[in-house]
Amino acid sequence: MGAALQAWILTIGNEIINGVITDTNRENISRELRSAGIAVKGMTSVGDETRLIGDALEYAMSRAEVTIASGGLGPTEDDKTSAAVADFLGVPLRTDQEQLERIEQRFRQWARPMAPSNAKQAMFPETAIPVPNDYGTAPGFMIEKDGRIAIFLPGVPRELIRMLRERVVPAIVQRFGMSEQVFRARTLIVYGLSESKLGEILADVAKDEEDFHLAFLPRFPVIRLRMDARGPSAPDAELILDSKQALIEERIPENIISRDSRQMEQVVLELLEKKGLTLALAESITGGMIGEMITRVPGSSRVFMGSIVSYSNDMKHRVLGVTEETLSGHGAVSHRCAQEMALGALRAGNAAVGLSVTGIAGPDGGTPEKPVGTFFIGLAAPDTVLTRGFVLPGERGWVKTLAAMQALDLLRRHLLGYRIHGTVEDDAEGSASGGRFGPGKEG
Amino acid sequence: MGAALQAWILTIGNEIINGVITDTNRENISRELRSAGIAVKGMTSVGDETRLIGDALEYAMSRAEVTIASGGLGPTEDDKTSAAVADFLGVPLRTDQEQLERIEQRFRQWARPMAPSNAKQAMFPETAIPVPNDYGTAPGFMIEKDGRIAIFLPGVPRELIRMLRERVVPAIVQRFGMSEQVFRARTLIVYGLSESKLGEILADVAKDEEDFHLAFLPRFPVIRLRMDARGPSAPDAELILDSKQALIEERIPENIISRDSRQMEQVVLELLEKKGLTLALAESITGGMIGEMITRVPGSSRVFMGSIVSYSNDMKHRVLGVTEETLSGHGAVSHRCAQEMALGALRAGNAAVGLSVTGIAGPDGGTPEKPVGTFFIGLAAPDTVLTRGFVLPGERGWVKTLAAMQALDLLRRHLLGYRIHGTVEDDAEGSASGGRFGPGKEG
Repeated sequence: MGAALQAWILTIGNEIINGVITDTNRENISRELRSAGIAVKGMTSVGDETRLIGDALEYAMSRAEVTIASGGLGPTEDDKTSAAVADFLGVPLRTDQEQLERIEQRFRQWARPMAPSNAKQAMFPETAIPVPNDYGTAPGFMIEKDGRIAIFLPGVPRELIRMLRERVVPAIVQRFGMSEQVFRARTLIVYGLSESKLGEILADVAKDEEDFHLAFLPRFPVIRLRMDARGPSAPDAELILDSKQALIEERIPENIISRDSRQMEQVVLELLEKKGLTLALAESITGGMIGEMITRVPGSSRVFMGSIVSYSNDMKHRVLGVTEETLSGHGAVSHRCAQEMALGALRAGNAAVGLSVTGIAGPDGGTPEKPVGTFFIGLAAPDTVLTRGFVLPGERGWVKTLAAMQALDLLRRHLLGYRIHGTVEDDAEGSASGGRFGPGKEG
Repeated sequence: MGAALQAWILTIGNEIINGVITDTNRENISRELRSAGIAVKGMTSVGDETRLIGDALEYAMSRAEVTIASGGLGPTEDDKTSAAVADFLGVPLRTDQEQLERIEQRFRQWARPMAPSNAKQAMFPETAIPVPNDYGTAPGFMIEKDGRIAIFLPGVPRELIRMLRERVVPAIVQRFGMSEQVFRARTLIVYGLSESKLGEILADVAKDEEDFHLAFLPRFPVIRLRMDARGPSAPDAELILDSKQALIEERIPENIISRDSRQMEQVVLELLEKKGLTLALAESITGGMIGEMITRVPGSSRVFMGSIVSYSNDMKHRVLGVTEETLSGHGAVSHRCAQEMALGALRAGNAAVGLSVTGIAGPDGGTPEKPVGTFFIGLAAPDTVLTRGFVLPGERGWVKTLAAMQALDLLRRHLLGYRIHGTVEDDAEGSASGGRFGPGKEG
C-alpha cells in the first residue's frame, strides 16, 4: 500500500536502553500509524538525558514529516522530555492552566492527594499545543518546526495507544490533508498451514497494491492474516476488504478459525454451546493444557465439565477405563488407547462429547516406530467415534502446544462437518486416518 | 555500576519498523553489553534501505565508541547491510573465501543444496574483518573508523546473542583495554513478594555501586533478581556476588525459588523426587494449568500421576468423592471442598501427595462473601492434611496463574518445612489459616 506521509518513532527512557523492559511502544505506534496509511521510516531510543533527546529529535524531524515520541513525561527528576524539547526549540517552559486543572481534578476523583511534583506534568515548551490525556495524569503535547511536527506522548502503553488513536492520528490526517482517505483493517486467524504454504496459496492476494496490503503475522500456533485497505470513503475501503476476504475464504475455507480476535478454544466452545453439547477431556501428552486453554474463556463452565489428566497408565486404566489389554498390547500411545480415553472422558465427565490426546512429548520416550512428536487424538461424540494419529516432531513445549491445538481443531472440524485427517497411517487396530497435514510442515 | 565504554545499538529490517515483529534483539544486546560493563547510550532501527542504514550508522558511530548492529545479512535482495556499510566506508565489497567455505560446508552438513544467493552472505566491505557464525549461515563482520568500531551481526536472535557473547564482547573488551575487569552475573528467582515490597526489603543492597548492580526483573508471577559484579579477577567478582547473595538470602530465605533458571514447577518436582513422593492434582479454578506447568519439565512422569480437572460439581462429586453435603452446605469454593478434593486426587492418582485448588476466576460468579479472586488450596500428604484460603482479585488469567503458583508454592513450603499462610480467615468448617500474604499486595 503506497504511502506518502513518513514518520519517525522516538522512545525515551533509561529502562528502554538498559534492556530492563521490552519496549513494545515502538511496534504499537508503528502499527497504529501504518493502519492510517503513514509509513514509518525509522525508530530511535535514548535514555533520559536532555542533550541526547534533543539530538535524536533533530535527527528524526530532519528525516520525516511526523515524529511520534513517547516517555519521559512523568513527575520525577528523571523525566526530562519537556525540558529537552524546550531547549531544542529555544523557548522556555510554561504551565498550562487547563491541563493543570485536569490533573488536579483527576487526583480529586481518585480521592488522593496530588504531589507537588505532578504540577510539572502540566509544563510544556511555550509554543507547544497540549494533547489531553483521558486515561492518566500525563498530558502529551505537539510542536511544529519548519512545517514538520512532533508529538510527545506518555510512555504508559495503554494511555499512549488510546491518545494516538483518538487524538493524534486524526490530527495528523487533518493537518497533512490526508482526510480524503479512509483506512479499514480486518484480521483473519488461520490454523493448520505453514507460513510458506500460506504464502504460496495467497501469493497473488498478498501482492502489494496502492489501496491494499496483506500481512502474515505468525503467532505460533496460528497465523494472523491482517488486511489493510483504504479508499475515499469507509464503504469503499470495506468493499476492497470484502473482495479480498472472499478470495482468501475461497482458497482456505477450512483453515480460517475466526474473522475477529476469537481464538481456537473460544470458537470450539461456541460451536458446542450452539449445538447444546457438553465436553469432557482426557489428556495425557498435553498435561492439562487443553483444559487450561478452554477455561481462559469466561463462561466456559456452561460447556466444559472437566478433564482427566491421566499421566500415569494406572490412572488411564482406573479413572478412564482404558483396558489392560490395550495398554500392554498397543501401548498408551496408540489409536486404541486414544479411543478408550475419549470414551472414558465422556463417562467421567458425564458429557456429550469426549476428546482425548495421548502421545510422546520428548525429549525421552521416543522409539523408531513412535518417535518424539507422535500423538493420537480420540473423539467420542453422538454417532461418532474416531481417532487420528500425527507425527509432528519438535521441542517438548512445541509438541504439547500442537497436540492441544490439533485436538481442538479436530473437534472444530467435526462440528463444522469438514474433513478430518491425520499424518499417521492406520495401525491394525485403530480407526481410519488419511491425508497428510501438519502446521510447520509442508505436505 | 560505573562504565566508561559507551555503545549504540542499531537494528535493521523492514519487519521491525513496520511493527510486524517485536524486536527483542535490542534489549538482549543491551543486557549482554551491560553485563560486560558497557553502557548503552541509544538505539536506532531502520528499514532495509541503503541510504538510511548508512545515515543511522554515521549517527551511531559519532555518538558511541562501539556500535552493535543486527539484521540485513540474509541472502535475499532485501538484505542490504553489507552494501550499505561498504558505501558508508567508500570501499567495494569483496568475497571472503574462508567464510564462503564455511557456508558451503554448513549446507553439506545439512545435506541441502546451497542456493547461489547464499554466496552473497560471504561478501563484506573490503576493509571489514569477518565474525564467524557457528550457529547459522550468515557470518557477521567488524569495521573500524576513526578509532571507533561497529560490529554487524545476523538478526536471528539465537545466533546473534551467542556470537555477541562468545566472540564480540571478548573482542571489544580486549580492543578497548577493558581486559583487567572480569564480569560475573547471577540470577535468583523470587516469588511471593511484590516488586515494591522487595525493593523496600533490599533497598540498601540495590544501591548502585562501582562494582555491583542489582536489577529487579519482574516476569509475572515471579521476579528475577539479577546481580552483576565485576572485579580484577573471576574470584574477586564471585566474592562480591557471594556476599551480596548472602545478604539477600538472609532477608528473604523462603521466597527464593531457585538460584538458577529453574522455575517453581521444576523445584517442586525435584523436592518430591528427592523424598520419593508421587503427586496427583485436583484442579478446578486453574482448569489444568498446574498439570500443564508440571508437564513442561522433562521426566515429570516419574513423579506426576495426573490431575483431575473437575470443573463441574458433578465431577467433583463422582470422580473425586467430594460429598453432596460439602457442595450444598459449604459450596465448591470452600476449605472443606478443597480438602476433600485433595484427598480425592490422592486416591484417584494413587499418589503419596494430593494437591487441590478451587475458586472463582471471574469475571462472573463472585459474591460479597466470596468475591472474584477467592480460592482455596488443599494439601493431603503423609501425616498432613491442610487447607489455605486466598483472595487475590484481578483479571481472569491473572487469578488462574496466581492460584496455580500459590498451590505449587504451598507444596514447596510444606516440603521445605516453611510457614504456610493464607489471606482468608477460617471458615467455621475449614482448617486453620493464618498470616496475610499475597504477591502484588503488600502485607
